[in-house]
Amino acid sequence: MSDTAYNEIDAPTRILMGPGPSNIHPRVQMAMMAPMVGHLDPYFITVMDDTVKMLRTVFRTENKLTFPISGTGSAGMEAGFINFLEPGDVAVIGVNGFFSARMVENAVRCGARVVEVPAEWGSIIDPADVEAALKAEKKVKMVAVVHAETSTGVLQPLEEISRLAKEYDALFLADTVTSLGGAELAIDDWGVDISYSGSQKCLGCPPGMAPFTVNKKALDVVTNRSTKVPSWYLDLSLLSTYWTNDRFYHHTAPISMVYALYEALRLVLEEGIEERIKRHQLHGDALKTGLEAMGLELHAQEGHRLSMLTTVRIPSGVDDAAVRKGLLNGFNLEIGGGLGPLKGLVWRIGLMGYSSNPENILLVLASLEKMLATEGYKLEPGAGVKAATEYLKNH
Amino acid sequence: MSDTAYNEIDAPTRILMGPGPSNIHPRVQMAMMAPMVGHLDPYFITVMDDTVKMLRTVFRTENKLTFPISGTGSAGMEAGFINFLEPGDVAVIGVNGFFSARMVENAVRCGARVVEVPAEWGSIIDPADVEAALKAEKKVKMVAVVHAETSTGVLQPLEEISRLAKEYDALFLADTVTSLGGAELAIDDWGVDISYSGSQKCLGCPPGMAPFTVNKKALDVVTNRSTKVPSWYLDLSLLSTYWTNDRFYHHTAPISMVYALYEALRLVLEEGIEERIKRHQLHGDALKTGLEAMGLELHAQEGHRLSMLTTVRIPSGVDDAAVRKGLLNGFNLEIGGGLGPLKGLVWRIGLMGYSSNPENILLVLASLEKMLATEGYKLEPGAGVKAATEYLKNH
Repeated sequence: MSDTAYNEIDAPTRILMGPGPSNIHPRVQMAMMAPMVGHLDPYFITVMDDTVKMLRTVFRTENKLTFPISGTGSAGMEAGFINFLEPGDVAVIGVNGFFSARMVENAVRCGARVVEVPAEWGSIIDPADVEAALKAEKKVKMVAVVHAETSTGVLQPLEEISRLAKEYDALFLADTVTSLGGAELAIDDWGVDISYSGSQKCLGCPPGMAPFTVNKKALDVVTNRSTKVPSWYLDLSLLSTYWTNDRFYHHTAPISMVYALYEALRLVLEEGIEERIKRHQLHGDALKTGLEAMGLELHAQEGHRLSMLTTVRIPSGVDDAAVRKGLLNGFNLEIGGGLGPLKGLVWRIGLMGYSSNPENILLVLASLEKMLATEGYKLEPGAGVKAATEYLKNH
Repeated sequence: MSDTAYNEIDAPTRILMGPGPSNIHPRVQMAMMAPMVGHLDPYFITVMDDTVKMLRTVFRTENKLTFPISGTGSAGMEAGFINFLEPGDVAVIGVNGFFSARMVENAVRCGARVVEVPAEWGSIIDPADVEAALKAEKKVKMVAVVHAETSTGVLQPLEEISRLAKEYDALFLADTVTSLGGAELAIDDWGVDISYSGSQKCLGCPPGMAPFTVNKKALDVVTNRSTKVPSWYLDLSLLSTYWTNDRFYHHTAPISMVYALYEALRLVLEEGIEERIKRHQLHGDALKTGLEAMGLELHAQEGHRLSMLTTVRIPSGVDDAAVRKGLLNGFNLEIGGGLGPLKGLVWRIGLMGYSSNPENILLVLASLEKMLATEGYKLEPGAGVKAATEYLKNH
């Protein structure tokens, strides 16, 4: 019978070194095997409570409303804009990559007028440009930037822009999809009012949840809106009653995904946040050292490179798709291609969460060398692996 | 160290006989153990393709855009309204339960004017009332009803209302969160233009995905909007390019959840849709027979009762919360309480998907008898189990 002609799930074992999802820790995967319970089961309530507490620790915040949104990082982004921006509001958005461009799209859909503060795809947003934009406007509701741009490999410093937002009485939003659990991040100390992340990057969890945190000042803005939030599903005033107060039924939480996130957060805390950040930094630096030893050029602005995602320029004459296909088919290794204006120009190599380990560094360098040689690119055999190995030994 | 003081996941083994989530089939749970892959991995593309095909079969539709939304059933509901209703549009919504009231809330947030067609919580919406509402308006954009109301236990006939919607040139939306995979449903034959469901009811999958289907006529309405869809995450014109055409990156699909849904759909097709509907009907009828043999009253309108969710009235003098707590703590058995105006007046007993089996019927009847006896309710010992057993033997 043709209806039953579908094969059972038989996914290949990939080494995930793209922009996410990353590989997931076996303990995180096992957590999804826990028995299903009701979304208001007393046991599940304890899981929710502890998930909230652990997320606060990882975000470094005391924000009461800190919880995972029941959707992917993109749903987190939407919640970050649709709750706060009303028609006619002005948002100043730093635009230097794929995900910051998406923030603009989100803000526009809220009916906001967006003032874009641009920078090259590969450079940080200059706080002076943000200040100029703030000065030119009468009243800005929100300033938004991406902390870790996976499309460009850039780590955006947040503190100065946060200070400016406060000076001009605007909310400050930071997209931490790729930085949470992998890079230094301090929501409260840095004065971030609103932030969302994703489960499938440095937290090492399957995609499907968006950790979110918002402080009282920003939440008051939601409460005092003159119009209803267009999204019922992402309305923070409703979500807060489910996640932090009365457990008033809002929607049925994705139980198995919450189990997975819970276990992923336990792993973060067991390793220690500082240790985890150091691990990401060490491995990112070793990878970069290896890539440069292969004669390759890094794309992101020096001094502002992400540890967990490295953009490297594709040498001229080398076939982007052929190399990535060769890595996938020959080594079960996934790296990312470029997005938007960087399509065909860079590769994006991730070392996130459970995927951030020395073996993966050596594997990607060795296999990339092989594929580049196939493409006729000249390089000293073994140079990348050797440089990365030495770097790891000495750091 | 206090940071590591969180316990590992140790969820109790519950028998889930509430309004959902239902228990999940071991094969569905195992599917989540498959290796993580990238969201554009060639393997994952085949899983997406087959998921779409299987969903079409289960929805009984040829609709090209048939796919799971990356959120819970409530996200599906939001997608069903936010894409189609623009400010000023008129929506006629049948309101006879908790979830139809939520549809109104969704439509209002789209800026639509809602004409409510009310009925008692426990009765169906009368098509004549829908027709009267359609007649009274100059132009109605959408008519919406809930097919299977889990708050009341009512199964709403769809065909006549669908015919009326067409007659008055309105889109017809049916919420099939609880009916898909458990009750007769024929999207194309019945002329349903838009429908969304949930993964955690009769499909027997964890919560977290919302199967969705929309036909070309309705999708053209999205394409021809005069304003952008306020939700970027749920914009069907963007989602369609990811799910059905170019695999253009939109958001990172919740891979493990898609695996689970894929396997759940395989199980539906293996069992056969008709067989599965019969199973739900048989077990629902046996449960009702048992409950009535215990002297209990069914709440939903006769002739329009759901098979997978039975509402039964709480006898006067019986403590709602005490009984449900006793079932949970004494038997690991979850049933649902009433929502809204039915709070404290009814219990909601689900027999959905993998949870719909004879053992569960006998267990809930026997344990409910015990709890009712504790509460001082007089009934003939064993009457419920006996009646249900005989029903099952004879049907």
